[in-house]
Amino acid sequence: MRLTIYTDYSLRVLIYLTTLSENERTNIKDIANAYGISKNHLMKVILQLGKLGLIETTRGRNGGLRLAVKPSDINIGSVVRQTEDDFNIVECFSKEQNKCSISPVCSLKGVLHQALMAYLDVLDQYTLADLTTNGSLLKELLQDKDPTLL
Amino acid sequence: MRLTIYTDYSLRVLIYLTTLSENERTNIKDIANAYGISKNHLMKVILQLGKLGLIETTRGRNGGLRLAVKPSDINIGSVVRQTEDDFNIVECFSKEQNKCSISPVCSLKGVLHQALMAYLDVLDQYTLADLTTNGSLLKELLQDKDPTLL
Repeated sequence: MRLTIYTDYSLRVLIYLTTLSENERTNIKDIANAYGISKNHLMKVILQLGKLGLIETTRGRNGGLRLAVKPSDINIGSVVRQTEDDFNIVECFSKEQNKCSISPVCSLKGVLHQALMAYLDVLDQYTLADLTTNGSLLKELLQDKDPTLL
Repeated sequence: MRLTIYTDYSLRVLIYLTTLSENERTNIKDIANAYGISKNHLMKVILQLGKLGLIETTRGRNGGLRLAVKPSDINIGSVVRQTEDDFNIVECFSKEQNKCSISPVCSLKGVLHQALMAYLDVLDQYTLADLTTNGSLLKELLQDKDPTLL
């Protein structure tokens, strides 16, 4: 029942970007350092968040990363639906991989699908703004690295 | 967002056992053959279902496996809670593994926990009996192996 590390890091990047001041930009290295995670893992995440139109990347001296959309317009359910690449809760969710002999008459798939929808429905109720109401504390933890808070 | 193969197989074993006639017993080989899955994978599953008091195993010539509890008394949410060994949706769900720097002030964990509870709440609404209302068809697919149904 884990989300992929890819979805986890996507959400962390978005949370990080909410702590930037207006017009401020950041880079992969700073985000990786703030969370103590690998830059390589973040490269793919950043690329995908850019493709989804959630972040804006600018090259050059004053370039960098920032949110392309207001936090209140970024729905968490929508982010997870787009970044999580495996919603095949059990084998029969995948047409290609399914070999379960009872699939034609089994009710389990429907029940698990209903459960998955309930899970995503909860995430649909939240935006990135809802997750970052502690903005100043998040900023301290991510950017200022005040040792008393770490 | 996958359940482990262990939970998947646990549910399949329970479904299989509902297709037995009263006093009939089966064995790991027949279950493995019916689903086309490995006997070795099933060994651990059977052991755990026995420990949970859901199945009864008897040794000897007329021995074998059968349900120890009525299907209507086996709650699917309860089975999944007990067989799924990793509900750590993201890193911060595990006290031991968590290294995320924003944990003390991050709201994401609470939101994901709420989503997980919604997922399990759906499963709590179903028993094994609800999943096996197509009993005769399940039996044909699992035991009789009628080629027109496979």
